[in-house]
Amino acid sequence: MSENCLFCKIAAGIIPSTEVYADDHVYAFKDLHPQAPIHILIIPRSHIATLDDLTIEDRPIMGHLLERTAHIARELGLSQSGYRTLINCRDHGGQEIYHLHVHLLGGRALGPMLAK
Amino acid sequence: MSENCLFCKIAAGIIPSTEVYADDHVYAFKDLHPQAPIHILIIPRSHIATLDDLTIEDRPIMGHLLERTAHIARELGLSQSGYRTLINCRDHGGQEIYHLHVHLLGGRALGPMLAK
Repeated sequence: MSENCLFCKIAAGIIPSTEVYADDHVYAFKDLHPQAPIHILIIPRSHIATLDDLTIEDRPIMGHLLERTAHIARELGLSQSGYRTLINCRDHGGQEIYHLHVHLLGGRALGPMLAK
Repeated sequence: MSENCLFCKIAAGIIPSTEVYADDHVYAFKDLHPQAPIHILIIPRSHIATLDDLTIEDRPIMGHLLERTAHIARELGLSQSGYRTLINCRDHGGQEIYHLHVHLLGGRALGPMLAK
């Protein structure tokens, strides 16, 4: 756990959140400022700051994280309608919290990949 | 390999593409209709139609795929500026080719996650 990391504290239950899924390695919760009818953040419990910090040793946790993201989408009824997952990295990506997180967005047609 | 799948054929070299990275499990190539200065598609060589089709058995390939995406971004000089990765699933996600693919977008500030 990184001492000053908001998402480490959320995963540890020190800061409250609306839990959607939890296991030993992954925690998922509702985004406080949803950009779509369904907007969930899925994070590894271990502190990885950005996608750019990934090493070969992180492959298992990232595979677990993505497969659980699909599982959560299924549980939320998004299987057939579809959804988008997104990971922002640093400045150009628009990353706001420096603890790697997957955005799961759904509940409506999400439009083009990037705003014009 | 799925017989009628465009991306299976691209990974197998049957349909040409501009290769960016290749290993035994993953293939990456330039998107033909780039939405940003850098727009790469990273795919598993094995045919997985959508994110919704992932099973627990797919965790290793997905971990590999994401870690290699970060590697490719590094090789393309996007480490410090940042980038966005995105996986669209089915209709609401705007998935066009039903062979799972990661979009890697970078080279400029990418703006909000979703178009208004």
